[in-house]
Amino acid sequence: MNLILLLEEDFTGPGRVRLTGRRLRHVLEVHRASVGGELTVGLLGGEMGRGRVTAVEPDLCMDVELHLPPPPKLPLKLVLALPRPKVLNRVLAAATSLGVAEIHLVNAWKVEKSYWGSPRLSEDNLLLQRVLGLEQARDTVLPPLVLHRLLRPFAENVLPGLIEGTLPILAHPGADEPCPRTPTGPVTLVIGPEGGFIPAEVELFVRGGCRAFTLGERILRVETAVAALAGRLF
Amino acid sequence: MNLILLLEEDFTGPGRVRLTGRRLRHVLEVHRASVGGELTVGLLGGEMGRGRVTAVEPDLCMDVELHLPPPPKLPLKLVLALPRPKVLNRVLAAATSLGVAEIHLVNAWKVEKSYWGSPRLSEDNLLLQRVLGLEQARDTVLPPLVLHRLLRPFAENVLPGLIEGTLPILAHPGADEPCPRTPTGPVTLVIGPEGGFIPAEVELFVRGGCRAFTLGERILRVETAVAALAGRLF
Repeated sequence: MNLILLLEEDFTGPGRVRLTGRRLRHVLEVHRASVGGELTVGLLGGEMGRGRVTAVEPDLCMDVELHLPPPPKLPLKLVLALPRPKVLNRVLAAATSLGVAEIHLVNAWKVEKSYWGSPRLSEDNLLLQRVLGLEQARDTVLPPLVLHRLLRPFAENVLPGLIEGTLPILAHPGADEPCPRTPTGPVTLVIGPEGGFIPAEVELFVRGGCRAFTLGERILRVETAVAALAGRLF
Repeated sequence: MNLILLLEEDFTGPGRVRLTGRRLRHVLEVHRASVGGELTVGLLGGEMGRGRVTAVEPDLCMDVELHLPPPPKLPLKLVLALPRPKVLNRVLAAATSLGVAEIHLVNAWKVEKSYWGSPRLSEDNLLLQRVLGLEQARDTVLPPLVLHRLLRPFAENVLPGLIEGTLPILAHPGADEPCPRTPTGPVTLVIGPEGGFIPAEVELFVRGGCRAFTLGERILRVETAVAALAGRLF
């Protein structure tokens, strides 16, 4: 937690906040905050700044000053086949920390049906994982996250609008062309499930306007691939 | 497991292997292998190829043909402040899957002493995590891994030889110069602990020949940073 993310409801008055729960514990146990100490803070969806601790018991109270803009997002929209629940948390936090502008989770043939029933898809968890990514990277702006449980309607109705004005890259092991590097404009990046998209799905994405590129011989875990591609592209 | 990694001792005769334990369970449960099925295999430190399943009970037997070279490594040596045990496994597997050529784990002021006593630093675990990375990426060549429990002797005696002929990059949030992209030769990449290297440590690395570069405003988890930098550099 390199930034303590504040919510509107944390404010007890102008420039004064009170924290409880997860953030309180983290600040006490990891930051070992004491009265008079300073912490980097930011308002969810707003500015960043410094907080000065005025009390640590029973709750953490701080006087905060917010005057810095959050870092810019990458001009990158991410479309991911829904990963295994175990992997989902890490991917969401990593993509958010990297500054991905928006995240779309889609279905695919090789996405097991049970993944869509995982408790990790609860609104609370999807929010928490992105908050953890913001706190890690010192950002305050939550990337929108949209679930698309049916691939065909997504590819036919949503994808064309999504990729408008972007370079739409489908990362596909079978493709011939190597993935470009430092494109001049925004990118939409589509990454398939473990085992890849099946040919009919690749066809759907290509008809929807995407171009298939290969990332080389190595097959990477999705969270590694997202980070490596973000580093390569921007 | 996109490749079943074979050891010399798996061979029961020329071109015949028998698998037990972790790999047997994985092949049966995840690949759902049956007699006649084919799997991608590779010999640790050797060539890759195909295996044809000849029996699944009580052990998995395969006829294998190995004739493909493993993918080339990245010209990248990685020097990491020892991460938290929880993070260590993921970093080792990710770095190996990306094709990092060798890995050095070093001490730093902000590395908690207890991390060096973690059971995850056992030889068996350090081997297993890299094997998982090889199996993920379809590679067979284990990157050497060296532990350096004292930073100063490492920086003064080991680092100068390590970085010879490479661009030695110290990823440091405080630096002014942005990290280069697509260098023409090999790179040694040094990444600090959560919370960063302290100034005296930065000084040690700089005296040892490293140049400090910034990666931008965002603070990334070490496994995300490694992947983003590998993607950016190569």
